[in-house]
Amino acid sequence: MESPVNTSITAIKPGQILVRGYDLCEMMGRLSYAEVVFLLLAERLPADAEGRVFEALLVSSVDHGLDAPSTHVARTTASCGVPAQAAIAAGINAIGDSHGGAGEQCARILQEALAAHPQADLQELARSLVAEHRLGGERLPGFGHRVHDPDPRAVRLLALADAEGISGRHVALARALEEVLSEAAGRSLPMNVDGAIAAVLSDLGIDWRFGKSIFIISRVAGLAAQVHEQMTAGKPLQFARPVRAAYSGPPPRSLPGQGKE
Amino acid sequence: MESPVNTSITAIKPGQILVRGYDLCEMMGRLSYAEVVFLLLAERLPADAEGRVFEALLVSSVDHGLDAPSTHVARTTASCGVPAQAAIAAGINAIGDSHGGAGEQCARILQEALAAHPQADLQELARSLVAEHRLGGERLPGFGHRVHDPDPRAVRLLALADAEGISGRHVALARALEEVLSEAAGRSLPMNVDGAIAAVLSDLGIDWRFGKSIFIISRVAGLAAQVHEQMTAGKPLQFARPVRAAYSGPPPRSLPGQGKE
Amino acid sequence: MESPVNTSITAIKPGQILVRGYDLCEMMGRLSYAEVVFLLLAERLPADAEGRVFEALLVSSVDHGLDAPSTHVARTTASCGVPAQAAIAAGINAIGDSHGGAGEQCARILQEALAAHPQADLQELARSLVAEHRLGGERLPGFGHRVHDPDPRAVRLLALADAEGISGRHVALARALEEVLSEAAGRSLPMNVDGAIAAVLSDLGIDWRFGKSIFIISRVAGLAAQVHEQMTAGKPLQFARPVRAAYSGPPPRSLPGQGKE
Amino acid sequence: MESPVNTSITAIKPGQILVRGYDLCEMMGRLSYAEVVFLLLAERLPADAEGRVFEALLVSSVDHGLDAPSTHVARTTASCGVPAQAAIAAGINAIGDSHGGAGEQCARILQEALAAHPQADLQELARSLVAEHRLGGERLPGFGHRVHDPDPRAVRLLALADAEGISGRHVALARALEEVLSEAAGRSLPMNVDGAIAAVLSDLGIDWRFGKSIFIISRVAGLAAQVHEQMTAGKPLQFARPVRAAYSGPPPRSLPGQGKE
Repeated sequence: MESPVNTSITAIKPGQILVRGYDLCEMMGRLSYAEVVFLLLAERLPADAEGRVFEALLVSSVDHGLDAPSTHVARTTASCGVPAQAAIAAGINAIGDSHGGAGEQCARILQEALAAHPQADLQELARSLVAEHRLGGERLPGFGHRVHDPDPRAVRLLALADAEGISGRHVALARALEEVLSEAAGRSLPMNVDGAIAAVLSDLGIDWRFGKSIFIISRVAGLAAQVHEQMTAGKPLQFARPVRAAYSGPPPRSLPGQGKE
Repeated sequence: MESPVNTSITAIKPGQILVRGYDLCEMMGRLSYAEVVFLLLAERLPADAEGRVFEALLVSSVDHGLDAPSTHVARTTASCGVPAQAAIAAGINAIGDSHGGAGEQCARILQEALAAHPQADLQELARSLVAEHRLGGERLPGFGHRVHDPDPRAVRLLALADAEGISGRHVALARALEEVLSEAAGRSLPMNVDGAIAAVLSDLGIDWRFGKSIFIISRVAGLAAQVHEQMTAGKPLQFARPVRAAYSGPPPRSLPGQGKE
Repeated sequence: MESPVNTSITAIKPGQILVRGYDLCEMMGRLSYAEVVFLLLAERLPADAEGRVFEALLVSSVDHGLDAPSTHVARTTASCGVPAQAAIAAGINAIGDSHGGAGEQCARILQEALAAHPQADLQELARSLVAEHRLGGERLPGFGHRVHDPDPRAVRLLALADAEGISGRHVALARALEEVLSEAAGRSLPMNVDGAIAAVLSDLGIDWRFGKSIFIISRVAGLAAQVHEQMTAGKPLQFARPVRAAYSGPPPRSLPGQGKE
Repeated sequence: MESPVNTSITAIKPGQILVRGYDLCEMMGRLSYAEVVFLLLAERLPADAEGRVFEALLVSSVDHGLDAPSTHVARTTASCGVPAQAAIAAGINAIGDSHGGAGEQCARILQEALAAHPQADLQELARSLVAEHRLGGERLPGFGHRVHDPDPRAVRLLALADAEGISGRHVALARALEEVLSEAAGRSLPMNVDGAIAAVLSDLGIDWRFGKSIFIISRVAGLAAQVHEQMTAGKPLQFARPVRAAYSGPPPRSLPGQGKE
């Protein structure tokens, strides 16, 4: 007899759906959608201030225009004549380590560093984390942005987290990293939205392993709107345009012999 | 020179992100996540009552346990050793016409019927829609549920829409359909959560083409929690268990000759 | 007790795998990969000539450079830091009605027309099919190509099917369609590779419902090579470049009141 | 001006498609599909013996019945009312480190070990590799199978590679590993099909990074047949059956206060 699958998320019986122990229908009308998402991820209801900051966190990444790679993928796929869910799924497949993944990586660094060194001086901890990454030849994820300087979403999210009393040790460590990195770079290298989300979700007590998922939860609404626009107002195959390619393979050559024919 | 891609969703410049004309950073802290989703889909801000009902609508489908096919697919995929986004994407690929798609089909029926017959008597319109589907041998999507009778999420969502003054002609038509269908079936065939969402989103003025996307936006948080649970507490390959198969193909047979060896 | 799932494809017991009744290990070394694919799709082994033509059919669509939308999607996704299978899956999601789907649509038209009118004069049948599509305002799928005129893969595949004695009524009907369409258009509108594949797979006795799958089976090798090149020689996020966008949404506007803050 | 994308795979101009320098249309009818796949992956044409072994390698993984997780995912997804490509894409998303990924991991071990120690005594190298993995608490991928003992596909593929003169240092190292592992385990722990494919593709000179892709290229035909069977002969939502779940979350509880209503 096979063993059952353990789950602590949802229990169902006819007429009743319990999510983390709470009745889903009682939550409808009493909790906002974002508060229920918080419950799913943090395994507890948010306090009011936590709920407000988490709303803003989800709003911050809801869309970033046509050039975000996942949006590009979703719209290109939508232009190929597929149903909405397939285009959205393709876009989500593109949310990887190099796009939308910086938040998870940054949250991991913050959470692991503070779990290992709970009493550390944050400036020292930041210097040691930067040095460690420099040794490995890596860039610390969550700082700097190719378009925005500074990233206004990060500025706003951190201000809200401060005002609501959510900012704690993780936000403080992220700010220390920002300072050390900027010093080292000789120019301002401010937290971007991924870094700010990483710091804030860590101070909200959410596991860093949810980092990419939080980005997905937020962005999926933007993807849905983009795909809808492509399907209703776009042109077939319009979105993927010719790429300027430089062919560097073998020159034209003939097949050997005619032996096989 | 290739033609540009038209978009009315998001405009970006360094330091500023405008979504449907509103500054994303100003929305952070002022609008809830669900209100911003409403803005993306309906192309306008919700009134307060609309926002409250839309929150409940998104909460209603956030998770439905292990047996929902998209959850089954997402957890099976997660058990195969892939990153979270790939498991979530696989689950979203399974949100099709037969799972999560009833809301879109039902919303389309409601919106097209009322657009074509804006002055119709709703009982008559309902009877004609039921007759038409019966002729085509199809079941009207959005009514009846394999587990719940009635579906408590539908009951709750409709009660909230009534209380908030959102319920209009689409909800009324859906209720007329419920009555006609139940009469015809000789048993109660109540609106399920898909049908209630279809009716309510139609009275909120949202295009039926967003039907599956709204289900995806709601459910993606459940999928994220389920995938996280599988990755942190589940066992590799545990989720997809042997299926009882009945083999009905050709009996064992030999390859012809040895000609090819 | 739940009912078993019927399958006629594969039967497994320890030490033995039977596919369509044949021992997989006996097929290894005796049948080519394409012949086994033929067995899976047509539910019988190909005759030698059929096998040779099916090889060429699979070769014909194996890759078509960077600009094929599914390749574009797969490489963009690969540039986002995801494992190979996720990038390939995203690319396959983009093989839809408007990209890679023309073969299935064309094969359906050919198979349904000849099933309904097995004795028809093919010129007449072609004229009626073209007229019917013209009425519906649709283009017949499988004819004309945005880059090639004629499509050399179609020319070659048809020549091989003729030489091997495979070309039958479906190829003949496709050629009649080509003639009628070209006459009507007042310019050459030759079969493209999708149309040629549609005609040939129909004469091979393969169900048109496999049309997109055959394209996927063929193209997946090209996608794998493209994704590998992107992962080993490409740059992160390099592939999705800024799209020239024309913003047509609402002008910048302020949120109403401050009521919510 | 943005920099072009480098590619060495395919060059296209009107009327001509060159793949790795060879004219695609000249390959049609002269090379088998598997030989063209070899060209794409190895960047050269296979010798005749190499081509024959590569055919068998692709045949070996073409299908493994309903219980393979990717097949389970693809059929479940197909039962949800989606087009074939979306179900196949979902299945491919499930080909991860724990399913279909052992070949890539094993090929990497073999190729990196022999690249680092080209002159090594293979028995010694095998002992050191086993010891290293044991230290890390990991199982060496590519050995043992949950159903087959031994895996008949591995036996057959290795016999063909031996007979064709393909087996070289990588196959020999894999056999040494098999011996050391079996000794250590005190029971036979034979190479499975993933291990045999890993060893043979390495002796064919193919990059281990193609490991999962080769499994995908092979299995995609099985997935296509399985999805077609589900779509034409299966029942909606039939495939994903109720999972025996053990709920271990919080007991039923009430929402705090009524403050929010």
